[in-house]
Amino acid sequence: MIQKFFKLQIETNGLRLYEISDKIINWIKLSKFKNGILNISIQHTSASLIAQENADLDVQTDLINYFDKLVPMNSDLYIHTAEGKDDMPAHIKSALTNNQISLSIKENKLLLGTWQGIYLFEHRINQQNRIVVLHYLGD
Amino acid sequence: MIQKFFKLQIETNGLRLYEISDKIINWIKLSKFKNGILNISIQHTSASLIAQENADLDVQTDLINYFDKLVPMNSDLYIHTAEGKDDMPAHIKSALTNNQISLSIKENKLLLGTWQGIYLFEHRINQQNRIVVLHYLGD
Amino acid sequence: MIQKFFKLQIETNGLRLYEISDKIINWIKLSKFKNGILNISIQHTSASLIAQENADLDVQTDLINYFDKLVPMNSDLYIHTAEGKDDMPAHIKSALTNNQISLSIKENKLLLGTWQGIYLFEHRINQQNRIVVLHYLGD
Repeated sequence: MIQKFFKLQIETNGLRLYEISDKIINWIKLSKFKNGILNISIQHTSASLIAQENADLDVQTDLINYFDKLVPMNSDLYIHTAEGKDDMPAHIKSALTNNQISLSIKENKLLLGTWQGIYLFEHRINQQNRIVVLHYLGD
Repeated sequence: MIQKFFKLQIETNGLRLYEISDKIINWIKLSKFKNGILNISIQHTSASLIAQENADLDVQTDLINYFDKLVPMNSDLYIHTAEGKDDMPAHIKSALTNNQISLSIKENKLLLGTWQGIYLFEHRINQQNRIVVLHYLGD
Repeated sequence: MIQKFFKLQIETNGLRLYEISDKIINWIKLSKFKNGILNISIQHTSASLIAQENADLDVQTDLINYFDKLVPMNSDLYIHTAEGKDDMPAHIKSALTNNQISLSIKENKLLLGTWQGIYLFEHRINQQNRIVVLHYLGD
């Protein structure tokens, strides 16, 4: 059994999706992993991880707009407002999506569908430094 | 350490939940797995995986109706409309649920709750061929 | 390869978040795990698991209020009503969040972000006994 960890540092500059598939796939290739599980976790509660379509960029625009409408920034509902109007919506969007994804690696290949990419979904409007932990466990 | 992969092919014919628990449990039994992690991932971004109640079928009807109302097909919000009115809502429903679930196996038994079943949640209205990857890692 | 299982029993008394981070971290320390994956799964479909901010308690209040508004108890939409007005909303909230989280352990330390805590999110209003399965696989 082999285990390996890697900290992916992603600098974000605004509320949108950032594709991280290539960074993950490069690390898998360089590390020459055979078969195993890759656990990907984001160390924050105001950004999340999602697998989404990587073909038409309009899908990302629609996703962002939908979530902005579903979880509005200017709402009387929130009492946690000290960190900015985008902070509480960011926590809620994080709860509605995922902090963590486990993916399978077979013969050094990440088992994603043809149209699937892995994205960091940034929910804050200002610049942020995000840490995503990659953890491989396999042979 | 033992690893084994299996591609589950599910043909769907419309927007609803399809239980896949039995197919998963049969594969576990046939493979005589002892203790380990089963990573289940769907290779699509317009269908998802959820663990839900397997007792009263009305729960599934209510889930489908709720998600249809939360993510309406006819909305001016979407610009990604070329693949049909159900395509963008399918991507959003996928983001709101899960592409992947990791379950524990103990002494050849999948550790699900009494009322839990694993379902493929199809979000497209036309017939689709879906691939769900099962990946066991254990002893 | 080492594997170990532990059943966490959580008695809840109402719809809110219950932090379980300390219980998980204590088990990791006592068990002297080195590096591995911790699979955490809840054996129910009317409560869920989320990683959320552990600093300002107002975040939890806002989360609860948001989900109550997004998935109202008194809705004509539901036909599954025999188990109480909070039951179907509980299943939906469970689908919108997570039944399962996989976390990484490195040198006996759970890799959570500074502000991240792990919570059981109870969606039922009456007292419940919840079972959360911890499953470690590593070296």
